[in-house]
Amino acid sequence: MKNLKLTSISQVQKTAVKIGGVTMGQGFCAIAGPCSIESQSQMMETAEAVKKAGADMLRGGAFKPRSSPYSFQGLGLEGLKILARAGRETGLPVITEVIDPRDVSWVAEFADVLQIGTRNMQNFSLLKEVGKAGRPVLLKRGMYSTLEEWLNCAEYILSEGNPDVILCERGIRTFERYTRNTLDLSAVPAMRALTHLPIIVDPTHSTGRPELVAPMSLAALAAGADGIMVEVHRRPQEALCDADQALTPEQFAGIMAKIRPMQEFLAGISKEKNRKASSIG
Amino acid sequence: MKNLKLTSISQVQKTAVKIGGVTMGQGFCAIAGPCSIESQSQMMETAEAVKKAGADMLRGGAFKPRSSPYSFQGLGLEGLKILARAGRETGLPVITEVIDPRDVSWVAEFADVLQIGTRNMQNFSLLKEVGKAGRPVLLKRGMYSTLEEWLNCAEYILSEGNPDVILCERGIRTFERYTRNTLDLSAVPAMRALTHLPIIVDPTHSTGRPELVAPMSLAALAAGADGIMVEVHRRPQEALCDADQALTPEQFAGIMAKIRPMQEFLAGISKEKNRKASSIG
Amino acid sequence: MKNLKLTSISQVQKTAVKIGGVTMGQGFCAIAGPCSIESQSQMMETAEAVKKAGADMLRGGAFKPRSSPYSFQGLGLEGLKILARAGRETGLPVITEVIDPRDVSWVAEFADVLQIGTRNMQNFSLLKEVGKAGRPVLLKRGMYSTLEEWLNCAEYILSEGNPDVILCERGIRTFERYTRNTLDLSAVPAMRALTHLPIIVDPTHSTGRPELVAPMSLAALAAGADGIMVEVHRRPQEALCDADQALTPEQFAGIMAKIRPMQEFLAGISKEKNRKASSIG
Amino acid sequence: MKNLKLTSISQVQKTAVKIGGVTMGQGFCAIAGPCSIESQSQMMETAEAVKKAGADMLRGGAFKPRSSPYSFQGLGLEGLKILARAGRETGLPVITEVIDPRDVSWVAEFADVLQIGTRNMQNFSLLKEVGKAGRPVLLKRGMYSTLEEWLNCAEYILSEGNPDVILCERGIRTFERYTRNTLDLSAVPAMRALTHLPIIVDPTHSTGRPELVAPMSLAALAAGADGIMVEVHRRPQEALCDADQALTPEQFAGIMAKIRPMQEFLAGISKEKNRKASSIG
Repeated sequence: MKNLKLTSISQVQKTAVKIGGVTMGQGFCAIAGPCSIESQSQMMETAEAVKKAGADMLRGGAFKPRSSPYSFQGLGLEGLKILARAGRETGLPVITEVIDPRDVSWVAEFADVLQIGTRNMQNFSLLKEVGKAGRPVLLKRGMYSTLEEWLNCAEYILSEGNPDVILCERGIRTFERYTRNTLDLSAVPAMRALTHLPIIVDPTHSTGRPELVAPMSLAALAAGADGIMVEVHRRPQEALCDADQALTPEQFAGIMAKIRPMQEFLAGISKEKNRKASSIG
Repeated sequence: MKNLKLTSISQVQKTAVKIGGVTMGQGFCAIAGPCSIESQSQMMETAEAVKKAGADMLRGGAFKPRSSPYSFQGLGLEGLKILARAGRETGLPVITEVIDPRDVSWVAEFADVLQIGTRNMQNFSLLKEVGKAGRPVLLKRGMYSTLEEWLNCAEYILSEGNPDVILCERGIRTFERYTRNTLDLSAVPAMRALTHLPIIVDPTHSTGRPELVAPMSLAALAAGADGIMVEVHRRPQEALCDADQALTPEQFAGIMAKIRPMQEFLAGISKEKNRKASSIG
Repeated sequence: MKNLKLTSISQVQKTAVKIGGVTMGQGFCAIAGPCSIESQSQMMETAEAVKKAGADMLRGGAFKPRSSPYSFQGLGLEGLKILARAGRETGLPVITEVIDPRDVSWVAEFADVLQIGTRNMQNFSLLKEVGKAGRPVLLKRGMYSTLEEWLNCAEYILSEGNPDVILCERGIRTFERYTRNTLDLSAVPAMRALTHLPIIVDPTHSTGRPELVAPMSLAALAAGADGIMVEVHRRPQEALCDADQALTPEQFAGIMAKIRPMQEFLAGISKEKNRKASSIG
Repeated sequence: MKNLKLTSISQVQKTAVKIGGVTMGQGFCAIAGPCSIESQSQMMETAEAVKKAGADMLRGGAFKPRSSPYSFQGLGLEGLKILARAGRETGLPVITEVIDPRDVSWVAEFADVLQIGTRNMQNFSLLKEVGKAGRPVLLKRGMYSTLEEWLNCAEYILSEGNPDVILCERGIRTFERYTRNTLDLSAVPAMRALTHLPIIVDPTHSTGRPELVAPMSLAALAAGADGIMVEVHRRPQEALCDADQALTPEQFAGIMAKIRPMQEFLAGISKEKNRKASSIG
């Protein structure tokens, strides 16, 4: 990997990103919420449900990059206010996507984490702007991007002075169309060997199929990811965006009910291994 | 193709985009110039050479989207002034890439055509801005984009009130790495059947190999493209960007020496065919 | 390109493969015929039509590699007899696909050229067998294959003692689904620089759309291909296989009516260029 | 999914394939061994090591499909004898690849399971032959194949009368080259919803990197796979084939030391869940 300086594993072993009471890069962090913020009640109801199910952070989009100019583009400022309030009331930090460099500074006032979406991974103006925003950044992998290109985009953000970048594998575009994209889960351990930045997995956009979210969430944990980001909607069939891929709060709770014990189990295995290693040494 | 309104072939047969004395969408238009504007002398020398070789329009980048933050990022405003002057002195219209919505209005004062690069095809903020810029827009295909997504991005621009969009096929990303990308030349006749917008081909970035530019330029013409955009540098080996894929002015002249007669030949075939068709009718 | 010996351009400038009165690798050779041989009358009628339209060789499949075991698998021996007879009666050499190493020797008695299909490009047992068959071989590119892998497969055939291999670009599999595959036309000049073997283009299977066959055939000629292979059926809508992509004989005749003059025109350009070059020298 | 009859989930809930004392489709089965059989001592030493580490089955190739005709092609019959003996002496069932329909019947005398490799997934002659061989078949996914195509190939085998097919996800070819292929782990739960056939994962060929085999093996288990197939060589650096991706016996043992407890843990979760479900019901 050429040109990597600040993001390289040679710099530091592991970065932990503090977001309110959550530390991304320690344990396993579950981010959940709707694709787009639609109304106060939709957001609040979903927020309470995902919190109850064990989510650590809340997601919701106010600016939606949509293929067609005639599709719902998000509620904008109004949405951000709704999201921030849902965060305050549930005590969950909130994450939202920003798509325009002109919006970064004011969006940052409503969000604990700024998300760069897959279509903007190489929007270098936007990367430079979030590099100066004083907020952690979740950088999704471009659906057409190599690991090297992805790390270079993280490098853009770090080189502007922002060390708090979280990578998010969300599937790449391949010939296979049964799934919406192809989740490249091997990117998780691959990145672990290349960079100190935390890396999470988005099992929703990568598969595009609700029934695949649970197994791929467990697989993400097993592969060593630092967390997942899952689309949850109080009533998926009514969602204004991605209605066919969001989980119900019950489905999400079912996943969390497996994730937490498995997380503990895996932590136990690691501890055991370290204990043996040190008793030998 | 869902959601297409203004870009659909059902609207109109063929759009002709007037750019100074050039009409994109009639005949075959050759755009040439360096990847990036490096200096007054580099730009002027190259501009005069491509004009002499038969180019219709001049290209040159002042803002370069580069994979790494540590690579040369372009001369910015200084570059735009150099480009505009080279355009004035040679009488060639100029085209340059814009990568930030905040730059659109002032870049438009220096450029006859605004280019949206492959990484920004779905930068919707930027698309909306160039839709209001009062300048023709060259919209490159995203390296990961379907024809439908590409047309929807053109729709973004048209729906803001700008009818002057030129499509540019520049290769898609595939498993093949002998070429930099895979030129999807069938996109030319495919788009012809879907939309009234002109479509040109970039044989340089698609192949990434100088020796493939000539055959793919002729193939583009034969496939029905409205033009080509070729990287030419006075001394390619000294280029600050894409040094290994630019043509020398002599190589470009060699291509144009074949393109022009072939263009005439193909126009003759079409006329002949129309004559026969009407004499039958 | 590692490991290439016999197929390398360093061996010889250009191989010409003699097939009856046709020389593949000189001029531009048009192969046409139905996807599969269905009946004596279907084959004969189509054969006469494509001959009249200017085809140089006849194609037809007796063994069809079909995705599903429940689809029509071809007429086998009966089909080969029909094909051979159609070839004799029209005076056109015939080409047919072989898919099993056990069939090579007897199929070779009915065919002038043996075709290896895209799914069998790396069927090494089959390659070795056609390498000993004493018949020219048309080697289609695997839909998932790099140029290097493709040449290595030709190397398998040559290393068994058969020098008469013709390459056929037939599209690669990408994310784009508007076309059936993505025709990688740049493979033509790329291969020209790597190997002495003739290379032709299949505009039918690569695009999967009849309306794209004509422009891509002309583009193939302009890119320097040695020929095309096109699916033509007397009544495409009745075809047992690939009904939606075959051309009518009239459509094929329309293409040939452009191909031949363009071929002459391009030969003229080359001659002119050589004349100038030698008069300078 | 069109055309699927025998492989469809609507037929039966889950197929269990008996192979000696092993039941593929119940629990989690680990297949291990070298890429190619090189010598009696190499095979025996590796076999004993993987057995000790907890492998359930032994792999080894006697016929190697190699990109170049000049690469080591395997020991053939001699290799099969060595493999069979290693199987007898360790008590492990053996699996080996068959690449030619003419070899199926006699190879079946030495192997407990016949493997169809990625390049032969759509070698329909070979599929029909193994469909009659009276031996379980491991069908690897074509590196360029959709789930639908893959299932149709299983259908070929089942429709010849052989119900014992095991699917093996081994990575698909994408633009990413950091890994040898891209492991499409979501294919595991996707297939679970479509078919009753067991499905395992090959973390070696999919990633091509030894350091990714452990995390992807655990992820495969978490995603619901029925097993893994891993390349292990007594001394990887001396391997005649795939030297840079095989694990040492120690590395393999390290993986198994995590796999078995995690398997138990996950079985516990499932049992708990079923218990709750039935006590509710």
